[in-house]
Amino acid sequence: MSVDLLVRKIKEKGNPSVAGLDPKIDYVPRFIRDEAYERYGKNLKGACEAIWLYNKGLIDALYDVVPAVKPQSAFYEMYGLDGEELLHRTIAYAKEKGLYIILDVKRNDIGTTAEAYSRAYLGRTEIEGEEYEPCGVDCITVNPFPGTDGVKPFIQDCVKYDKAIFTLAKMSNPSSGEFQDIVTENGARVYEAIAEKINEWNKGTEGESGYGAVGAVVGATYPEQAKTLRELMPKSYFLVPGYGAQGGGAAGVKPCFNSDGLGAIVNSSRGIMCAYMKGDWKEEEFAEAARSEAIRMKEDLTSVL
Amino acid sequence: MSVDLLVRKIKEKGNPSVAGLDPKIDYVPRFIRDEAYERYGKNLKGACEAIWLYNKGLIDALYDVVPAVKPQSAFYEMYGLDGEELLHRTIAYAKEKGLYIILDVKRNDIGTTAEAYSRAYLGRTEIEGEEYEPCGVDCITVNPFPGTDGVKPFIQDCVKYDKAIFTLAKMSNPSSGEFQDIVTENGARVYEAIAEKINEWNKGTEGESGYGAVGAVVGATYPEQAKTLRELMPKSYFLVPGYGAQGGGAAGVKPCFNSDGLGAIVNSSRGIMCAYMKGDWKEEEFAEAARSEAIRMKEDLTSVL
Repeated sequence: MSVDLLVRKIKEKGNPSVAGLDPKIDYVPRFIRDEAYERYGKNLKGACEAIWLYNKGLIDALYDVVPAVKPQSAFYEMYGLDGEELLHRTIAYAKEKGLYIILDVKRNDIGTTAEAYSRAYLGRTEIEGEEYEPCGVDCITVNPFPGTDGVKPFIQDCVKYDKAIFTLAKMSNPSSGEFQDIVTENGARVYEAIAEKINEWNKGTEGESGYGAVGAVVGATYPEQAKTLRELMPKSYFLVPGYGAQGGGAAGVKPCFNSDGLGAIVNSSRGIMCAYMKGDWKEEEFAEAARSEAIRMKEDLTSVL
Repeated sequence: MSVDLLVRKIKEKGNPSVAGLDPKIDYVPRFIRDEAYERYGKNLKGACEAIWLYNKGLIDALYDVVPAVKPQSAFYEMYGLDGEELLHRTIAYAKEKGLYIILDVKRNDIGTTAEAYSRAYLGRTEIEGEEYEPCGVDCITVNPFPGTDGVKPFIQDCVKYDKAIFTLAKMSNPSSGEFQDIVTENGARVYEAIAEKINEWNKGTEGESGYGAVGAVVGATYPEQAKTLRELMPKSYFLVPGYGAQGGGAAGVKPCFNSDGLGAIVNSSRGIMCAYMKGDWKEEEFAEAARSEAIRMKEDLTSVL
């Protein structure tokens, strides 16, 4: 199972963190933007070329520090077709650098449609007997709202093509509790019902590491809930957003890990990408600043494990 | 509000239905596929060119019968960048023909990311003070799992740019009940809690038609639940999947409508697209068969209203 590949990369780097690539154009240093606008125009294309240089600089500075990157699809889709092309280019480059790719797409639908989504990112699209990989990554995020028959097609491709998914369980945002924290007639919470299903879906997909292909998204901002969820899904890897910019610190993410120091990978997007905006960095040093923050984060995380 | 535009188009055509454009390559008549493969190769590009001819034929045959089309993003994403380009081309062509576009993407995320998704499809992306429309449609589907702060950015763009959304409430698939039907400590169901939020989000967005910008996805396969949901969200338009291929008939969708004969738009994808595979049609008559099925569906629906 592909989560073994993630675990191996985490161990190699000694770093259970993932750099989010959520590139708003406002994050891109001015000198890069100006150069791209001059060559390609001040438009969607120009913005995407600027972001490409920024992403490339970040990947070059981070690939020997972090085991994985997590591009957030929304921040590419918002630039239209140019943005989609940029996403593909970014994924290809990060792969080339040996990074594990978690594509954050939170896709979800009924069975036959989920199958199509799964082919797009984890599986293959068949055309007259030949198989093509439309946008292959190692792992995607999935929203479990449609239930088992909406999630199964992704799991089937995980097994077939050695991939993994992170299924939303308890998100990091302030209003995540509105539906996820609803108390059921049995006194449990909805996120616990989801966790039980994730644990069930994960069964039989465990690899050498002991962890399965069906992981969970568990926000760093809710450490109490994380503790419960860790117990409910002992063999699921956790993708943990909300460290740094959203307010969760290393102590907050600790409950997401198992006692073996594994079981979770913590995301930071803005914290790493925009590190150059804090302190005495010049904007030309954006990549160095990102690297420095990624190393600080690694040390912060490993200090509590 | 944009739902007024949908209501106007429904009244003009006297037809509360939407043609889903979920084009699997296997649906495309053989002669179209062969022609496209010959010109563009038997690959993702060739498949997309085949689907383009198919989509165009369907739109040409349907645009004066149905008020709206609903491309399902998954069936374009599964062809990679060529598929994304095909989606943009299909949307542009359907717009040109005066059709209302519901893009089925079921996007969802925390606030800042939801903002990016909303810009991609409902709003505008700003680059150095200029606004661009990356993939503008009239309406998208949204998954409410992240709660209010994940849905609000979409609603803000609905108000600002005269658009609409359909938020998942009770889906049509067999396992939709796993989380959506959970009984809460108050004896209500999770889908009812969602409906109450949708009704709240919808307040203040009502247009001339009386309906607001925040609609709901309610499966045709669960008429009992649809009845309850209709009462809980009197001013939300319903997008109703599951008619035809998934098993729901006209009687099944009736509870989704209000007594004014409005309030719902019923989707058929395979039923219309693959109509030529049933009965005595030749594959060259795929568009005529689709038109004939769309007219039959219109009559079926209006007969129960």
